[in-house]
Amino acid sequence: MIWNKSVQPACDPIMTAPLKAVDKPVDIATAMGAIGRRARMAARVLALADADRKDAALTAMAAALREHSAEILATNADDLAEARSSGATTAFLDRLKLDNQGVSAMADGLDVVRGLADPVGIVTEAWTRPNGMRIERVQVPLGVVGVIYESRPNVTADAGALCLKAGNAVILRGGSDSLRSARAIHTALARGLRAAGLPEEAIQLVPTRDRAAVGLMLQGLGGAIDVIVPRGGKGLIARVQAEARVPVFAHLEGICHVYIDRDAQLEMAKSIVCNAKMRRTGVCGAAETLLVDRAVAATHLQPLVTMLIEAGCEVRGDAAMQAADARVKPASEQDWGTEYLDAVIAAKVVDGVDVAIDHIARYGSQHTDAIVTDNQVTAEKFLREVDSAIVLHNASTQFADGAEFGFGAEIGIATGKLHARGPVGVEQLCTFKYRIRGTGQIRP
Amino acid sequence: MIWNKSVQPACDPIMTAPLKAVDKPVDIATAMGAIGRRARMAARVLALADADRKDAALTAMAAALREHSAEILATNADDLAEARSSGATTAFLDRLKLDNQGVSAMADGLDVVRGLADPVGIVTEAWTRPNGMRIERVQVPLGVVGVIYESRPNVTADAGALCLKAGNAVILRGGSDSLRSARAIHTALARGLRAAGLPEEAIQLVPTRDRAAVGLMLQGLGGAIDVIVPRGGKGLIARVQAEARVPVFAHLEGICHVYIDRDAQLEMAKSIVCNAKMRRTGVCGAAETLLVDRAVAATHLQPLVTMLIEAGCEVRGDAAMQAADARVKPASEQDWGTEYLDAVIAAKVVDGVDVAIDHIARYGSQHTDAIVTDNQVTAEKFLREVDSAIVLHNASTQFADGAEFGFGAEIGIATGKLHARGPVGVEQLCTFKYRIRGTGQIRP
Repeated sequence: MIWNKSVQPACDPIMTAPLKAVDKPVDIATAMGAIGRRARMAARVLALADADRKDAALTAMAAALREHSAEILATNADDLAEARSSGATTAFLDRLKLDNQGVSAMADGLDVVRGLADPVGIVTEAWTRPNGMRIERVQVPLGVVGVIYESRPNVTADAGALCLKAGNAVILRGGSDSLRSARAIHTALARGLRAAGLPEEAIQLVPTRDRAAVGLMLQGLGGAIDVIVPRGGKGLIARVQAEARVPVFAHLEGICHVYIDRDAQLEMAKSIVCNAKMRRTGVCGAAETLLVDRAVAATHLQPLVTMLIEAGCEVRGDAAMQAADARVKPASEQDWGTEYLDAVIAAKVVDGVDVAIDHIARYGSQHTDAIVTDNQVTAEKFLREVDSAIVLHNASTQFADGAEFGFGAEIGIATGKLHARGPVGVEQLCTFKYRIRGTGQIRP
Repeated sequence: MIWNKSVQPACDPIMTAPLKAVDKPVDIATAMGAIGRRARMAARVLALADADRKDAALTAMAAALREHSAEILATNADDLAEARSSGATTAFLDRLKLDNQGVSAMADGLDVVRGLADPVGIVTEAWTRPNGMRIERVQVPLGVVGVIYESRPNVTADAGALCLKAGNAVILRGGSDSLRSARAIHTALARGLRAAGLPEEAIQLVPTRDRAAVGLMLQGLGGAIDVIVPRGGKGLIARVQAEARVPVFAHLEGICHVYIDRDAQLEMAKSIVCNAKMRRTGVCGAAETLLVDRAVAATHLQPLVTMLIEAGCEVRGDAAMQAADARVKPASEQDWGTEYLDAVIAAKVVDGVDVAIDHIARYGSQHTDAIVTDNQVTAEKFLREVDSAIVLHNASTQFADGAEFGFGAEIGIATGKLHARGPVGVEQLCTFKYRIRGTGQIRP
């Protein structure tokens, strides 16, 4: 055991000690290796824990969060003070800040995860071979999930709970600026695990600000980590995707399109475009590009553009868009591939659904794209040909969310093609194995 | 276009020209990048090709193989001659060698793949949200598969056909020693694609012996490759797993166990152990370790060991095994983690199912493991607790095979936990997307 005893994540009382001492563990690689091995051992126990025990832990975790809310807020105040004194931006402080409502929301989130169906042990397929062998494909946990996140302290609770529900051990590596807050939250989670008789190593928080810990996790800690889930800005995601030697569930960006077809009703088009762009501009499912069929440019363009501008959205368009409203700014080639995450939209007139599909294939990020049309044939073509994780007909791109899918909660949205695509909920945090029951069959 | 026109893979007539000229393309990275882009374009067409068209191509491909059998055998003879003159082993030449029966078997294999159900477009889940949105999870092709293989020329046809059936484009990189044979086979596949009106770039063969091509494929060719499937020996697999920057479907080794429980019938135990070890010793599903419950050592040990030795198998055992038969050699620690792929088995007495499960967790490769017992409770415990891709009760480990699962054909067996685990057939060569049909829903 390499961590100095005094700097181990203490469970009781909630740790509020200065962090200096943990900044330099004797050997970060050795220390992280030990975390990996403990996670692997805990994963074996977690994988076999029944639903009741995991749910009992989630109940106790939520209770501990509520009970220790004051201590959590006090540590968060320390994090905020340090961040403020080192010149953090208002947006950064906003993400870091917790209040009573925030802690309460975290606890409520644990209750939501507890209420989900246990994904482990579900037989997703079963068949019998001619020789009488019965083959089942049964869901089992992934094993060990590594979560690398930035300043939002609530990720500690959300990711910990989702991984636990799916029977996985998790190694959490939060942002340096929120380490005190993450620790206080983690302590509550550890109480819950202990109360339910589950190993505390099921949810470990990397107790150091040393950035080398991230690099080691991306290497997989000697085979201990099965998948990495990064949560944060594009810089973090890009680094993780570039360096990881283990699979990653993530999306780098959501360049989502809404295509208004010639057979779209104007009112539905306005409603969906407004919602897809403006409901929340900072989410990955927010529309970034509007494509309008030239066949309805005369009737639909001006109302759509005016609606967007009057809703406070900057429109960057091609010549036809600029002609529709003088307030439209010219779009550059770069705009078609930009994720604004802001009240800005790129807008273009296209010659029908095929050109729209080509545009999305060229500039999109295979995240979420929508068509508005009353023509079923055109809709089916779009749904079939657009190769994105989520394709929608006559609905807003902002439905790209695990809760909106009915998954209850999500750890993120993936745009990779392997294993998990779209919202990553508890089922996507599982893998499967084949279980075969025979009566002595041998292979001829 | 960087390849000299004269060295491009010609389609007609079957290329039998010397290979020298292709050994040094002007710039291998540029050339491979172009292959990647062509594959990506072909993948868009393939993804939307209907089942009939893909099946027509498979029919024409099989016909072309049969029709051009003599030319394929002639190029194979050239490969064999070169390999022989450079001192290849008999085993190597065996893997490389094609005969009439081999070409016929390849063509039959294409017919088998054609007969499989089209996996693309299958809706694997569907549900309706309270707001009326209908969500479907529908199977779609992965995109572009990179296959890196060694000397067996038949992989060209097998992998090409499986990828095509699943709607994927494929980039094949065969062994240098079998490049002429692979080319002749590839030419037949290209004829089939052309006959069915599908792009020939759907199945590309890397037309160079330059080893840098492998490294470039492992980097993903600038995002063009979605998954790599290596086919060959442990050296190749290990290199691919270590270097790949894209997901890999593979297993490094199959250290498969058979555990004979206290409630096992001796006759069934003998039958399953004999089949699991000796049916074919060189396959990944062959048993490498025999574990016997101490409670039946007195009755079961000697008959099992004697049966194995008399079947021609070397047994390396612990003290109890050695006591059962004087011909048993002592096992070293290393034997428990060795994949012999030969008529050798490691054998050990263990104190019950829990110790057997621990042994498998420690030394196994999460490939395929079996228990023999008449006790349902013990069987269920084993099936639940052993974390391998395939776990069997009262059946031979040699059933670890796509055809035996009813998948019709497989491109390999995966022991990773993500996406594909166990036999990789056409369904595992697909991913999915969510297709959502609404009536104007916007998110509150």
